[in-house]
Amino acid sequence: MSDSLKIGVAGLGTVGVGVVKILQCHGDLLAARCGRRLELTAVSARDRGRERGVDLSACRWHGDPLGLAADPQVDVVVELIGGEDGVAWALAEAAIAAGKSFVTANKALIAHHGDALARAAEDKGVALCFEAAVAGGIPVLKALRDGLAGNEISRVYGILNGTCNYILTAMRKTGRDFAAILAEAQARGYAEADPAFDIDGVDSAHKLAILSAMAFGARINFGAIHIEGVRNISALDIDYAAELGYRIKLLGIARRVSEGIEQRVHPCMVAEGTAIAHVEDVFNAVVAEGDFVDRVVFEGRGAGEGPTASAVLADLVDIARGVCAPAFSVPATALQDIPTTPMDTHVGPYYVRLSVIDRPGVIAAVTAVLRDEDISMESLIQRGRAPGEGVTVVLTVHDTREDRMTRALARIAEIEAVIEPPAMIRIIHL
Amino acid sequence: MSDSLKIGVAGLGTVGVGVVKILQCHGDLLAARCGRRLELTAVSARDRGRERGVDLSACRWHGDPLGLAADPQVDVVVELIGGEDGVAWALAEAAIAAGKSFVTANKALIAHHGDALARAAEDKGVALCFEAAVAGGIPVLKALRDGLAGNEISRVYGILNGTCNYILTAMRKTGRDFAAILAEAQARGYAEADPAFDIDGVDSAHKLAILSAMAFGARINFGAIHIEGVRNISALDIDYAAELGYRIKLLGIARRVSEGIEQRVHPCMVAEGTAIAHVEDVFNAVVAEGDFVDRVVFEGRGAGEGPTASAVLADLVDIARGVCAPAFSVPATALQDIPTTPMDTHVGPYYVRLSVIDRPGVIAAVTAVLRDEDISMESLIQRGRAPGEGVTVVLTVHDTREDRMTRALARIAEIEAVIEPPAMIRIIHL
Repeated sequence: MSDSLKIGVAGLGTVGVGVVKILQCHGDLLAARCGRRLELTAVSARDRGRERGVDLSACRWHGDPLGLAADPQVDVVVELIGGEDGVAWALAEAAIAAGKSFVTANKALIAHHGDALARAAEDKGVALCFEAAVAGGIPVLKALRDGLAGNEISRVYGILNGTCNYILTAMRKTGRDFAAILAEAQARGYAEADPAFDIDGVDSAHKLAILSAMAFGARINFGAIHIEGVRNISALDIDYAAELGYRIKLLGIARRVSEGIEQRVHPCMVAEGTAIAHVEDVFNAVVAEGDFVDRVVFEGRGAGEGPTASAVLADLVDIARGVCAPAFSVPATALQDIPTTPMDTHVGPYYVRLSVIDRPGVIAAVTAVLRDEDISMESLIQRGRAPGEGVTVVLTVHDTREDRMTRALARIAEIEAVIEPPAMIRIIHL
Repeated sequence: MSDSLKIGVAGLGTVGVGVVKILQCHGDLLAARCGRRLELTAVSARDRGRERGVDLSACRWHGDPLGLAADPQVDVVVELIGGEDGVAWALAEAAIAAGKSFVTANKALIAHHGDALARAAEDKGVALCFEAAVAGGIPVLKALRDGLAGNEISRVYGILNGTCNYILTAMRKTGRDFAAILAEAQARGYAEADPAFDIDGVDSAHKLAILSAMAFGARINFGAIHIEGVRNISALDIDYAAELGYRIKLLGIARRVSEGIEQRVHPCMVAEGTAIAHVEDVFNAVVAEGDFVDRVVFEGRGAGEGPTASAVLADLVDIARGVCAPAFSVPATALQDIPTTPMDTHVGPYYVRLSVIDRPGVIAAVTAVLRDEDISMESLIQRGRAPGEGVTVVLTVHDTREDRMTRALARIAEIEAVIEPPAMIRIIHL
């Protein structure tokens, strides 16, 4: 059997401890699968004294994570600190510069610096791996890089944030509103005290940027992604979605179009018959569409100690076996600068919910705006009657270009009898 | 860029032509992904003159597939002929003996000879790959071998045969009986003229044997698999399943238990809320459960030109990149002889459908048998009344050992008022 692969882990939070547990619990199994042992030789964390439920007495301890990059007893640095810049980035650069392979679960780091890091890793002939950065335990990056490598991918999309999916699922099951469910999710530890990163779609966008680069061989352009979160989804929207045969999901969608790539994160209405509609609670799912394989769906846990550590181990196994596939499926020098198409040019059906005063002429005014923008209505629902008072009107429209829809919604908002800003959710053909 | 990988394809049926199409259509993309070109240098098929819609003029032609194993212009032999023995097996042995890597979509070959072929390939230091043998385009073998390699797998199961799933789906949607749907499936080309291999579960069992070896590091023991097909599923069973909150699926299930491994293919009632229940028509799905990753679901097309060729390409990409993971995730010499537990020791809930004469005392006689075998009933449904005539009685029972259930059903069949052999379907906790 070859020499062991010597592993240094930076960051001993939930995922770091999970990685240590797998290495300690499955030592023989991993050795059989890799043809060599995976050996935890060094760790780095802030507080050496903290009880973590794992025995670290055989490991070297580095108070400064950068010490791992300089440690001759480390072949691979596993970064589980987090953050797009700061120490995580410094550690990545130092480890690669020192000729060590680098494994991370840090989506922000890869979404912002993945291109430069991949170039550096290729120059040094070391591996850069980040399976755990997207969709937790689901080995979807490897699937795109290896399992679907015979395909040109036309679209990849998914439920990439478990917190948002938990909230949307709970809203649907209980009928309660966003704020109440968020508070409950925070109490249960499914949402952070500062939930902005998750619920405003930034976390999903980080993951989408990585998926998109892997699927299309495109250089990452995180800043070009259109991002909306789930804060404005109301219990009413969830109800109407059900009535119309849809469920609301926060999706990250990347799609090859003739002018470039669509890259967007926003709430979507997806038909109830689709696989993605049935992915509930904290589960994640990714769907890839290739020209030969057609549609493949991957579903599993997108976060947590075990699933994320499982993905980190998949990378370590690759490295131990000597697998040397390019980080983004093609060499970093071959990544293309493919433009991200502006959201204004998106075409699709839309759902719109209005609060209007129930009086003659309102619907005529709304539909006149749609007609003026050449928007074709598919359905209109008004529940109940309350002459002279506020009622909800929901309408769906056929395929429409986003800029037309935006103009129409601005004009509708100006109609005097429309008493709240219109709510809009895109309907997605899957 | 390194030398090209020279590929010889044996068998130019649907899948073979699909492989040629991908190689010709995605030459540059594959070269970028692999760091070298994938070059089709030779082919073998029976009829050289047949029009196949692909240009083979640049390839060497071998009338005898074994010629590929001897061709110095071939690095990898791709076997798409089929059949567990005969020329496919001879070609596998010859190619590996000649120091060539061997890729196949042939599940029967691997289920019967995979162990010996893996040993031979390891001795020669060449690759043996068969991603296309299980679940078509879904890269599930790689997921088990690589993506989930940090886990001990406790259970792997799935819908492994698209023909059966199409038939069961159509029965559910139309209410028609098995024979009518099978005839229609044959007319549409979804079922073979001789459908026995598919509908009797043998094809699913071949795939299960491979999944099981990959998941558990167990030496393949195809003969030990319990196999039942879908011939005896009636429209009545489909109806009652829906009434009870289940769908009927033909599953292949392999599960690690303390005494060994359960390996079985049979119709199952699965709860409607599960991901697998929503996998319809010709789609396949595989679910893997690991100790750290929890549950991961993979869904996609299990057959057809494009999906199967996509899986073959995934193997060729691995080989071109120099990936050298063991065929069954651990070296063939490390595969363990793990006993397959007898079906008699299976424990689970059951569904039973009886045709009985509607007269006093029948239910008492049936339930007395259950009591005598210590079987605990969960529900009993009798639809309609027809004193003195035949009616259907459906019952479900809580967790029961299979041998008790078998004895009970034999005794129930002997009750005079029971006028047809009882139908039994296992309910599966997922």
